Amino acid sequence: MSGIRYLEDLSVGERLITPSMEVTEAGAISFADAYDPQPMHNDPRTATRGPFGGLIVSGWHTTAMVMRLIVDTNPLGGAPVLGLGVDQIRWPNPLRPGDTIHAELEITSITPSESKPGFGIVRLNVTALNQRGEAVLTMNPNLWVARRGR
Amino acid sequence: MSGIRYLEDLSVGERLITPSMEVTEAGAISFADAYDPQPMHNDPRTATRGPFGGLIVSGWHTTAMVMRLIVDTNPLGGAPVLGLGVDQIRWPNPLRPGDTIHAELEITSITPSESKPGFGIVRLNVTALNQRGEAVLTMNPNLWVARRGR
Repeated sequence: MSGIRYLEDLSVGERLITPSMEVTEAGAISFADAYDPQPMHNDPRTATRGPFGGLIVSGWHTTAMVMRLIVDTNPLGGAPVLGLGVDQIRWPNPLRPGDTIHAELEITSITPSESKPGFGIVRLNVTALNQRGEAVLTMNPNLWVARRGR
Repeated sequence: MSGIRYLEDLSVGERLITPSMEVTEAGAISFADAYDPQPMHNDPRTATRGPFGGLIVSGWHTTAMVMRLIVDTNPLGGAPVLGLGVDQIRWPNPLRPGDTIHAELEITSITPSESKPGFGIVRLNVTALNQRGEAVLTMNPNLWVARRGR
């Protein structure tokens, strides 16, 4: 059975693991061409001579892919996954074309809204890992989640 | 004259204004289909009946477009614009297809690295505004910037 998950259905400490996704070189370059056109992200020849020894994926591409993995996991049973904001984005290790990533989520707090009694804020720890288990992204999003029977 | 801008060339309080960019509906839907496939971002008919009264741009699309505007502004004279992390991302107002955005940057701190003496961390306030001057994104990135003569 599926169904909307409301604020009351969630628990601090609840964890979720997303599916995995491979980052292709073509996809990394295409994203970088559009949004982050720098040689380290979209020019393999120049990147090979640079400090990272090859292409690295734009950090904004990583956040976008992790959003996709989270949406595909459908953590709220069909209710929108809507971020009020995100704190402390870090990219502790470079993500490279050919790597495979998945994300692990944990609810760290659940706070009913004071100004809008039908809603609350759910704070997450999100860590995205490559195929070697190295963290390539950590962040703390705040989601806006409806309460039951609002 | 152009040239690399090193840590020593930057000043707290320095401001930069990027060019503008229009967000098309096709672009918003294409990004959402790939990275944030939710009806509020990629299904105009359903979005019209939703709480925002129409499509809103994925917040991750907004951050990606603002990165593009910053890269195009070339704030470091050709040196890479490389983020260590980003704090306090907020989307205070929805960004909609058809809107035009630009970003305003201000350097709020410059801190030489203690562990890597050839580099430093430059913290920015970034605000992206729509054509009515409403903030659609605020964030505080930390950039990794080389020192002169390292």
